[in-house]
Amino acid sequence: MPHIALPSELPGIRSAFAFRPETARPMNALVEILLQGPSTLTKGERELIATYVSSRNCTHYCHSIHGAIAAAHLGGNEAVVKQVKTDFATAEISPKLKALLVIAGKVQQDGKLVTSADVEAARREGATDLEIHDTVLIAASFCMYNRYVDGLGTWQPEDEAFYRERGPRVARDGYVKVSEEYLAEHAAAAAR
Amino acid sequence: MPHIALPSELPGIRSAFAFRPETARPMNALVEILLQGPSTLTKGERELIATYVSSRNCTHYCHSIHGAIAAAHLGGNEAVVKQVKTDFATAEISPKLKALLVIAGKVQQDGKLVTSADVEAARREGATDLEIHDTVLIAASFCMYNRYVDGLGTWQPEDEAFYRERGPRVARDGYVKVSEEYLAEHAAAAAR
Repeated sequence: MPHIALPSELPGIRSAFAFRPETARPMNALVEILLQGPSTLTKGERELIATYVSSRNCTHYCHSIHGAIAAAHLGGNEAVVKQVKTDFATAEISPKLKALLVIAGKVQQDGKLVTSADVEAARREGATDLEIHDTVLIAASFCMYNRYVDGLGTWQPEDEAFYRERGPRVARDGYVKVSEEYLAEHAAAAAR
Repeated sequence: MPHIALPSELPGIRSAFAFRPETARPMNALVEILLQGPSTLTKGERELIATYVSSRNCTHYCHSIHGAIAAAHLGGNEAVVKQVKTDFATAEISPKLKALLVIAGKVQQDGKLVTSADVEAARREGATDLEIHDTVLIAASFCMYNRYVDGLGTWQPEDEAFYRERGPRVARDGYVKVSEEYLAEHAAAAAR
């Protein structure tokens, strides 16, 4: 039961975005640049970072939907997504991504925990300054998205099929486009 | 010493924004709406929420600059800012703001800690759904800004005079305008 009057037909962050479209716009713009924009990290890798951080924050909606989007980018490989959530050290991902996940996991707790040694380890695996920057900001921004979803007490569907159905569409169309659809739908519903 | 090659002449989040202007734009747009946009919460109240959360995250740059901006909005009242950082229950602020700071403090730890009773307590003091929403999002977003500043190891000046000098300018001109100035300056410096 949400803490405030969020539109009941929308789950998770979408209900909060529909409640306050003014703040939804920059929040969607940010996630679009970080997870869908040009980058030397693949979209699958970036979604795995977002999924991992959301999983550590125990935010069911976010780790489920971003896990589904990651799987869509990774040819439907749900096993690797699950492995990243439970123990990324043993997942079939690159050493570079593992080093970046160490940094993301520290940012999730407290940015001050990131050490020069963590950053050097990522560089040794080929990470660039921009990749390190984006890893820090993906982790930091999901500490925002997760708290936003949880702090308002949004509805977070339990059914995995819900996320499995939506993941590929977000993977294909991106955040801004899919949000425009439901924000417009909601505005139309509110006007009726 | 920053973990990546941030422009050394800029402190805190400004160095990260100059490094990656694409993500700086939506991040500045978001803080502008939340802290400077139209609201039934005063700008001073909203800056106190941001200051409190940054203080709990122990992010020196953010709690110092937002504390200085809050003081500027509150007629130079640095004492109330300090009191909010150390023990807001005894600060000379409204019962409504105290109830909202309880919610903000829980979001800073984990959004799931916010209870219906916390929200009801804020409502009893007159808080609206939009004020509760914005409190949750200010707290959540500062968990992002704080982690971004700390996770990159940005330079965070110790000297209080630095923040005291800048606070009133940001309070007057807003985040987007002051960021345009230094982002443009930095772009010009990089082009030389």
